[in-house]
Amino acid sequence: MTTDTPAVTVGVDFGTLSGRALVVSVADGRELGTAVHEYAHGVVDTSLPDGTGLPTGWALQMPQDWRDVLRLAVPKALRDAGVSADQVIAIGTDFTSCTVLPTRRDGTPLCELPSLAGRPHAHPKLWRHHAAQPEADLIVRRARESGASWLARYGGRISSEWQYAKALQVLREDPEVYAAADRWIEAADWIVWQLTGAENRNPCTAGYKGIHQDGVYPGPGYLASLHPDFAGFTEKLAHPLSPLGSSAGGIGPAAAALTGLREGTVVAVGNIDAHVTSAAAQALDPGHMLAIMGTSTCHIMNSDVLADVPGMCGVVRDGVVPGLWGYEAGQSGVGDLFAWAVRTALPQAYEQEARRRGITAHELLTEKAAAQPVGGHGLLALDWHSGNRSVLVDHDLSGLLVGLTLDTRPEDIYRALIEATAYGARTIVDAFERAGVPVAEFTAAGGLLRNPFLMQTYSDVLDRPVNVLASEQGPALGAAIHAAVAAGAHPDVRTASAAMGRLHRRAYLPDPARAAAYGHLYAEYTALHDHFGRGGSDVMHRLRRLRDRRATEGPSVP
Amino acid sequence: MTTDTPAVTVGVDFGTLSGRALVVSVADGRELGTAVHEYAHGVVDTSLPDGTGLPTGWALQMPQDWRDVLRLAVPKALRDAGVSADQVIAIGTDFTSCTVLPTRRDGTPLCELPSLAGRPHAHPKLWRHHAAQPEADLIVRRARESGASWLARYGGRISSEWQYAKALQVLREDPEVYAAADRWIEAADWIVWQLTGAENRNPCTAGYKGIHQDGVYPGPGYLASLHPDFAGFTEKLAHPLSPLGSSAGGIGPAAAALTGLREGTVVAVGNIDAHVTSAAAQALDPGHMLAIMGTSTCHIMNSDVLADVPGMCGVVRDGVVPGLWGYEAGQSGVGDLFAWAVRTALPQAYEQEARRRGITAHELLTEKAAAQPVGGHGLLALDWHSGNRSVLVDHDLSGLLVGLTLDTRPEDIYRALIEATAYGARTIVDAFERAGVPVAEFTAAGGLLRNPFLMQTYSDVLDRPVNVLASEQGPALGAAIHAAVAAGAHPDVRTASAAMGRLHRRAYLPDPARAAAYGHLYAEYTALHDHFGRGGSDVMHRLRRLRDRRATEGPSVP
Repeated sequence: MTTDTPAVTVGVDFGTLSGRALVVSVADGRELGTAVHEYAHGVVDTSLPDGTGLPTGWALQMPQDWRDVLRLAVPKALRDAGVSADQVIAIGTDFTSCTVLPTRRDGTPLCELPSLAGRPHAHPKLWRHHAAQPEADLIVRRARESGASWLARYGGRISSEWQYAKALQVLREDPEVYAAADRWIEAADWIVWQLTGAENRNPCTAGYKGIHQDGVYPGPGYLASLHPDFAGFTEKLAHPLSPLGSSAGGIGPAAAALTGLREGTVVAVGNIDAHVTSAAAQALDPGHMLAIMGTSTCHIMNSDVLADVPGMCGVVRDGVVPGLWGYEAGQSGVGDLFAWAVRTALPQAYEQEARRRGITAHELLTEKAAAQPVGGHGLLALDWHSGNRSVLVDHDLSGLLVGLTLDTRPEDIYRALIEATAYGARTIVDAFERAGVPVAEFTAAGGLLRNPFLMQTYSDVLDRPVNVLASEQGPALGAAIHAAVAAGAHPDVRTASAAMGRLHRRAYLPDPARAAAYGHLYAEYTALHDHFGRGGSDVMHRLRRLRDRRATEGPSVP
Repeated sequence: MTTDTPAVTVGVDFGTLSGRALVVSVADGRELGTAVHEYAHGVVDTSLPDGTGLPTGWALQMPQDWRDVLRLAVPKALRDAGVSADQVIAIGTDFTSCTVLPTRRDGTPLCELPSLAGRPHAHPKLWRHHAAQPEADLIVRRARESGASWLARYGGRISSEWQYAKALQVLREDPEVYAAADRWIEAADWIVWQLTGAENRNPCTAGYKGIHQDGVYPGPGYLASLHPDFAGFTEKLAHPLSPLGSSAGGIGPAAAALTGLREGTVVAVGNIDAHVTSAAAQALDPGHMLAIMGTSTCHIMNSDVLADVPGMCGVVRDGVVPGLWGYEAGQSGVGDLFAWAVRTALPQAYEQEARRRGITAHELLTEKAAAQPVGGHGLLALDWHSGNRSVLVDHDLSGLLVGLTLDTRPEDIYRALIEATAYGARTIVDAFERAGVPVAEFTAAGGLLRNPFLMQTYSDVLDRPVNVLASEQGPALGAAIHAAVAAGAHPDVRTASAAMGRLHRRAYLPDPARAAAYGHLYAEYTALHDHFGRGGSDVMHRLRRLRDRRATEGPSVP
C-alpha cells in the first residue's frame, strides 16, 4: 500500500430487510463507498418458500439472503469506493439480534438440509419473531422461583425475542429439529463463521441475549425445570467468547471467492447493530449514553459501575467494549407512535397539503406542531402504545392522552406524542442516575435524527445538550471500526472510535425557558406514569385483558 | 268547523339559525304541514349590520328575523297542510334560551331604535353569547358569600348564558343601554308579546334562566353587591308569570296581519325548546327522563320530589308542567365529540370510502365501530372535551383516552367516545337516583336518534329500555300541544301530551350480555371520572391553565 491507496476496512450491517457494506478509511473514518442489497425473501412471516404456512407472530429469515449481501454488496461497495481488495485490511459485521438459527456442527443451517427445508422451526428466527411468549413467561417464572442471580441483570425479565425462549419453542413444538440442531447460534456469529470457516462467538449477543453472566450460562438444573430435554441446551451454545474488536480469523477460500476479498483478510468478531453503533458515535466512555432512535429506541451506555437499574434490558461485562459494564435500556415505541398518529389522525386535508407541497406527513405535522409554545396544546400523553420496557418492564400498559378539547388538532396530538417519548427518555436517564450510574453525555443516532424539532424537544425535555451521530451509516461504520482494531490498525476500540467515529457534539442545546416549562410538564408526566404504571390504577391491564378475551368473539350488535 | 276541517294548532319553534312552523291536528297530533324560514342574519357574531365589530365570544340576533318566521313560515305551513286560518284554534311557540333582549316599555327592541341601532349591547343576546363569564363568576361568588338559598337549585352555578350575567355585562359595558332598557325579556316571551300585543312572562325561562324561585327573584341587597346600579335589575323582569299551557291572550290586529291568522286566535304562554319537547315525547310523568341529544345533551325530568341533585342545571317548580318540580341536567359535549373525531381522526382512505359509498363519515365510522364486541377496542374515554356540566359542574376538565395501542383505529376512538357519552348519561341517571329522585323511564330525542348503534349502546350502558320521540319536530309539536291546552281543547298539558305526543316505547332494549360487560367498563369509567374530576389528580386544570397562559405567546422553536 502507498499513501495513494490508504488502508480501508469494510463494515457490513445486516438489517431486517437488507444488508449494507461500507468501505471506510482506517486512518480517519472517511466513508469511501457503500452498497446495499435487499434480501430476496425479506421477512418470512406468512409462509415458507415451499408454501408451508406460518402462525401469527412468526418471523423467519433465509440464510442465503445474508450470504448474498457478502456476495453482492461487498464487491459493489469496493467498486463504489474505487478501492481494491488489496487495500482491505479487515472486514467487520454487525447483525440484528436476537436473530438466531439452528445449524449442524459444521454451521450448515438446518433449513438448508433438504429433509428439513419444509419445517418452520428449522429456519432462522428473526429478532421480531414473537411466538415464544409462553416460553419467555416460563423462563422468567422459573428464574424467579429458583432465585436465579442473573435475572436482575436483565431488569427482571427475559424477552420472548431472546435465545432461550426461541429455542424452547423449537423443543416444545418440533423436538426433531431441536435434536438435529448441534448448534444454536446468533446470526451475528454465524455470518462470521461463513467468512472464516470456523465457529466463533461474541460476548455481546452471549451476554444480552444468551444469559451469559460472570463467565457462565444458566445451569442444567434450572434448564431442566423448563423442560426435561432442555437440560443440555447450553451445550449448543458453548464456545469460548472472543473479545469484541478482536480477530475471529482470516477469510477462508470460500468467502474469498464469494466476496472478492483476499484470503486471510482479517475478520472481526461479530456484534449487534445497536451496540456497535456506540463505536461510530464515539459514545464509549463511561456515562456516555447513546440513544438509537427509530421505531423504538435502544439506549446503550458503558459504565465502570455495576448496579441494578430499574427496567434495564441488560447489563453485560465487556458487552460493548472490553473492560466496562455495558448497559442497555429501551423504549418500546417511539417512531412507531408517530407512525400511528399519521395512520390514525391525519385528515384528508392534511394529506393533500403534504402531497401538494411535496413533503411527508411527518414533516407537515412537525411543522404545524413546532409553531406553538410549550404547553400550548394543553395535552399530555403516556408513550405506552407498545407498552413500557424501561423503566416499568410492562408490555401490557397502553397509551394515554389527557387534555383533549374540541379544539385539539392532529398536530397537537403529534407533538404530545413526541414530548411523551422525550419524557420517557428522561425517565430512563433519571433511573440510571438514581441507581448510581451517572449519565454524563447524551448522544442520539437513528432515523429520528431527521427531525430537528424532535431533537430540540429532547434537548429541552432532558435539559441537557444532545450530541448526534454524524454518519448516516452508524452500524456499518461501527463494524468497520471494530475491523480496524481486529487488524491491529488501532490499539483498541476506544482509540479507533476516537479516530474513525463521527460525533457532532452539542448539536442541540436546551433553551432555558422551554426546559423550565418542560420541567413542570415532566412532573405531570411522572405523576401519570406512576399512577397508571405503578399500581395507582390498574385500568390499563383490565382493558387489555378484556380486549384480548374479546379478540375472538363476534360483533357487538347483530 | 266540520269533521272534514278538524281543529289544528300551530307550533312555532325558534331555533338558532331558523324558525319552523308546524300544523298539528288537535285530536291526535298528526303533523299536517310544516315550513321553515332561515334567519336572514343568522347568528350575528362578527359585526352588526352597520359594520360595528363585535369582540370574540359575542353572539347576537336580529328581532326582525324572528318576526319573519311568523310572517313567512306560519302561512306557508298552513298552505302546506291545506288548512285555513279558520281551523287554527291556537298558536304556541318555543325558543332557544336564554336568548334575551332589552326593550322599551312597549316591547320595542332597543336595537330597533335608530339612536341605538349601532350599539352592540342594544341587540338580543343569543343563548350562546359567551362574553359574560366574568359577570357569571361574580354572580356565583357573591351568591356563595351571601349564602343565597337559590344557588343549590342550580347545582351551585349560574351560567354566563343566563339573564343576570348578560344584563350585568350590559350595565358594566354600556350603562346607557342598560338605563334605556325598561324591560329585559327572554325572546320566548317577547315573541308572545308580538303576537298578542301585551307583555307576558312564562315560568320556564323565569325559573331556569331568571333565578325565579319560591315566587321571588333575588333581592336588591344581593343585586347591589354585584354592582350598585344593578340593585333594581329585577324591576326590568317583574311581571306575573302565566302557567305553562295557559293562554297569554288572543292574536292582535298587527300579528293577524303578519301571520294571516284570525284576530283573537289563542296564543299560548312561551316556552323553551328543550323543555317543551317533553310534551311531544309524552315524557311528563314524574321520573320520566327526556334526553335531547344533539351537539350537547339536555336532560329534562319532572318529579314530585325536591332534592339537591349534584350538578343539575336547575330545578323549577311548575317549570315543565304545572304542579311538579322540573329538573334539568346536561352533558356539555356529546355530538360535538363525534364531530371532533371526524375532524381529527378520519384518514383520507376513510373519507374516500365514505364518499364512494355515498354515506357520511359518521355512518362509516359507526358501521366499522359496530362490528366489534364490547371492550374489543381496549379503550376507555372521558367525555369531557367540553368540560362536564352534570354531575361535576366543571368546565375546565378535558377529555381523556386510555388504552391506546399501535392497533387503535379511528373507529375504535369513535366508539369509545360514543360509549363515554353513554357512561356520562348513566352517571347523571345514577346521580338523580342516589339523590332520591327516581328515574323510571328514559326517552331520547334530538339529532342523534339517527344513529341506531349509538341508541342501542345507550340502552346497553344504561341497562334499561330506551324510548324515542317519534316525531322529527319535537319542539314545534310540543308548542302545538301547549297551544291546544291554551285553547281548551284538552284539559291540561299531560292529557294533551297523551293524545297528541309521539313516543316509541322500548325502541331499544338492553342486551343482557353487553349490559353486563358495560357494567364493568362503567365502573372503570367511574373510577377515572372520580380520579380526574373529584381531586385525585388535578392535572386537567393545570394543563388548561398552562394552555391558556400560552395562548398569546409565540412559537416554541424559532
